[in-house]
Amino acid sequence: ASSPMDPHSQGSKTKFIDFPYVSAPHKNLMVDLVSTLETRLGSQLLPCTLPPDVQYYQNESGTNHASLHIRSGLSSSPVDLVLGSWLHCELPTGGALNITSLSSYLNPTTDAPNFLLELIQSSPTSLVLILDLPPRKDLVLHPDYLQTFYQDTQLDTPRQKLEKLAEVKPYFSSSLYIRSVVSPTAILVRIEAGSGGEGKGLEDIIENDLSPIAKEVLGIWLDQCACGEREVGEDEREYLKRRDDLIKRKTIEIDLGSNFPRLFGADAADRVLGAIREVYKV
Amino acid sequence: ASSPMDPHSQGSKTKFIDFPYVSAPHKNLMVDLVSTLETRLGSQLLPCTLPPDVQYYQNESGTNHASLHIRSGLSSSPVDLVLGSWLHCELPTGGALNITSLSSYLNPTTDAPNFLLELIQSSPTSLVLILDLPPRKDLVLHPDYLQTFYQDTQLDTPRQKLEKLAEVKPYFSSSLYIRSVVSPTAILVRIEAGSGGEGKGLEDIIENDLSPIAKEVLGIWLDQCACGEREVGEDEREYLKRRDDLIKRKTIEIDLGSNFPRLFGADAADRVLGAIREVYKV
Repeated sequence: ASSPMDPHSQGSKTKFIDFPYVSAPHKNLMVDLVSTLETRLGSQLLPCTLPPDVQYYQNESGTNHASLHIRSGLSSSPVDLVLGSWLHCELPTGGALNITSLSSYLNPTTDAPNFLLELIQSSPTSLVLILDLPPRKDLVLHPDYLQTFYQDTQLDTPRQKLEKLAEVKPYFSSSLYIRSVVSPTAILVRIEAGSGGEGKGLEDIIENDLSPIAKEVLGIWLDQCACGEREVGEDEREYLKRRDDLIKRKTIEIDLGSNFPRLFGADAADRVLGAIREVYKV
Repeated sequence: ASSPMDPHSQGSKTKFIDFPYVSAPHKNLMVDLVSTLETRLGSQLLPCTLPPDVQYYQNESGTNHASLHIRSGLSSSPVDLVLGSWLHCELPTGGALNITSLSSYLNPTTDAPNFLLELIQSSPTSLVLILDLPPRKDLVLHPDYLQTFYQDTQLDTPRQKLEKLAEVKPYFSSSLYIRSVVSPTAILVRIEAGSGGEGKGLEDIIENDLSPIAKEVLGIWLDQCACGEREVGEDEREYLKRRDDLIKRKTIEIDLGSNFPRLFGADAADRVLGAIREVYKV
């Protein structure tokens, strides 16, 4: 078996799996999640075929760096693709913005939820966590689906655990579309850790509170969604494909549309956007 | 024009519009919302035809009291029905639980969102507010609908205003289905007011913070949803009816299923449930 996220295909010296700009607990969490996912699903995934200048890229002045890694599923697999990324941008205020993400889309042979994790760190003491299994169907019309994937799996328990921490506040995405895409058990929180001697530090919270919860949710997704067998009829596959494609298009638009050209220049933005659209087939 | 919620049809001395157990600012808010809604939509609504023992009922020991008022829309109206209610239950701990609600369903000749308001007061200093225009469609599949009713109406602004208050915390319904039914701009908050001399009192918050926001959201609903003209084809009407009926059935189940027999006895629970099902046609 190859090592996490197929580093063999990387030409550049800076690798996706290095997560070079984040704290040790943050890196450890990301590496653990990627390895867990690869160990379970690796045999169903093709190598990453993104061009080297999409796997790693930076802006002209060298203040902003990013890495993207996408592995598509074999045609026999229910996995459509697995996407990992990190981004590091120096801020005008002197600090840095660091984002790491891991997500996975399933294909229309199953209607099981997708996986979504994003860590957005905009200061040494502040972190936004987005962790969810976004549903593939309208939950209002499909209460049985809600029961199977969200109630029976007790997905609200990790959310409740995290909510109890004094450092944890709710987070509302500025995009109403993103708010619509997530499930009713989505973890959308801002963690404001103590600075100096006061309260728990952010690294402590990532290691001891956030990591176990992220691993638990990924475990539920792997067991119940990626590896749970679901029968889906032809009619429904069309519906799922239409809904999945729309989410992909809108997510690209929201995530990359406005910020990427500003952060990495128009050329890099176009290149990365084009590569993603090709893999996403949208 | 008749006065709010058609009191003429009431045989009992205790009227829906009296809201006899809540504080003055809470009552004033409810009366204001009901009057505003009736002034705009009254000519499209039939009188309340619920039996007197469903319009007002209590438990055997007389500790729990409730009122229900439903007016169906004329066949020419886009309004399916308007439902108002209050409930007062003495708690074993000595306090009381007071719930007041006002909601409205539109019918499948339009796909515009419904209206939902619920105030749940379980102590003199604690109040849960649920205020939303629940969508009639899967927002993920219909970004244009999200844009029209939630983005362009700036429905997130009142939510953000309320969120800024120190006394306001997020509220998560214990029902994942209810969480799925609401929109991405839903106001779901718990207000924990100061007791004694500390901080703002609950009545102050209801009068000065909550009331203007509830009136603003009802105004948006009346202007953009109840009175906005939308063309809906035959195919879509079937879809809307299926989704609306499912929400009604599930909401009855969640709201009344478990608690009502306990609070009002099996007979009253059956009577009220039966009357609601008849008006809801589900």
